[in-house]
Amino acid sequence: MEQDKSVVVLSGGMDSCVCATLAVRDFGAENVAAQHVSYGQRTEAREQQAFRDICDRLGIKQRLMVRNQALGQIGGSALTDSGFAVPAAGAEIGQQIPITYVPFRNAHFLSVAVSWAEVIGAEKIYIGAVEQDSSGYPDCRPEYYEAFNRVIRAGTKEGKIRIVTPLIAMRKAEIVSLGLSLGAPFELTWSCYSGQSRACGVCESCALRLRAFEAIGMQDPIPYQTRASVEES
Amino acid sequence: MEQDKSVVVLSGGMDSCVCATLAVRDFGAENVAAQHVSYGQRTEAREQQAFRDICDRLGIKQRLMVRNQALGQIGGSALTDSGFAVPAAGAEIGQQIPITYVPFRNAHFLSVAVSWAEVIGAEKIYIGAVEQDSSGYPDCRPEYYEAFNRVIRAGTKEGKIRIVTPLIAMRKAEIVSLGLSLGAPFELTWSCYSGQSRACGVCESCALRLRAFEAIGMQDPIPYQTRASVEES
Repeated sequence: MEQDKSVVVLSGGMDSCVCATLAVRDFGAENVAAQHVSYGQRTEAREQQAFRDICDRLGIKQRLMVRNQALGQIGGSALTDSGFAVPAAGAEIGQQIPITYVPFRNAHFLSVAVSWAEVIGAEKIYIGAVEQDSSGYPDCRPEYYEAFNRVIRAGTKEGKIRIVTPLIAMRKAEIVSLGLSLGAPFELTWSCYSGQSRACGVCESCALRLRAFEAIGMQDPIPYQTRASVEES
Repeated sequence: MEQDKSVVVLSGGMDSCVCATLAVRDFGAENVAAQHVSYGQRTEAREQQAFRDICDRLGIKQRLMVRNQALGQIGGSALTDSGFAVPAAGAEIGQQIPITYVPFRNAHFLSVAVSWAEVIGAEKIYIGAVEQDSSGYPDCRPEYYEAFNRVIRAGTKEGKIRIVTPLIAMRKAEIVSLGLSLGAPFELTWSCYSGQSRACGVCESCALRLRAFEAIGMQDPIPYQTRASVEES
């Protein structure tokens, strides 16, 4: 029997790093292929660096780095459109869809992952989507991935590829704990929406991350400009 | 009430031209936005020209032309990978998935269309997918679009956008008849997989098109290098 292969969607953030570490545990680094998509997000160069560093550390050699021009051309998000400011996190995280929502973004990533999986013969796609403790993006919910799996079944040659979302029901603090137990290289990750050399510490993504480390009494190993302590709502 | 808007996925081929003509009839040219994706296909410059010409003729002013680099990087298809030759059509059209299949391609197009529709406030996406008389691509079947509509419902802000496939159950000859009755500008279209100035006349896409015009006793208005007469299987 041929060894199963997996494509992992790796942005370089905390969740995707834990997800990639899990994939390497499950398949072996030689059977994991990692994908990064740059789409004109403010921090893309920093993300690419995190992607490379994490792949190097985990021993993932098969990599696909692509540029998606459409999301930047389309705009409509604070992450891709300089006409919007990236907001500081407030107590309302997750209660409404924030302006950092990139319209239908994950479908672009998954489309790349499925096309690549078809060509290289991978049958699993790991993605670190998280529903709880997240920003409330609609493309991070389980029903979204269930529906996408039906699209794959209907729209690929053999219909065998499946998206796997191992973190989707976890709380952020649980993801940090899991990552620590697996040896996920958190010090190489990048989650911030707006910083460049040091994470800003105040955007929603930084806030969710800092809160998760705080909750389990650990220090986040990456450098921050400031460390906002965000109240639980 | 605000006027409904539609995004049309317009490659510049015969089917998408008829589909765009229908969208203009249904919504008015001022409420139709047309999208073209170049993805490293052999004939992309010729397709882009067809896209512009058709938009000009139909009066579609809102346009999005994007470049998808991922499909070219991933390869695995005779349309994007120069390591494959584009085959001449045989009697077996549609009986197995041919090497011109671009893995999971339509999901890339639809992802762009949905993102754009969310930003510009369109609630319909018209795509000229055809199941019958087609090459047997899995992403041209009704169940694929039904599943994709579920992904949109789950994964967008308001969940209201719908993909519409007005041609999906039609035969190619019926599409030509419909296009002629609507005044679709067939003379501006480009369907060929391999030609550059004149359509090759022998690839699967040319063969399907020539057969459709023949079936209703009409002359295809575009110039061909040769006109293969493909036997019905």
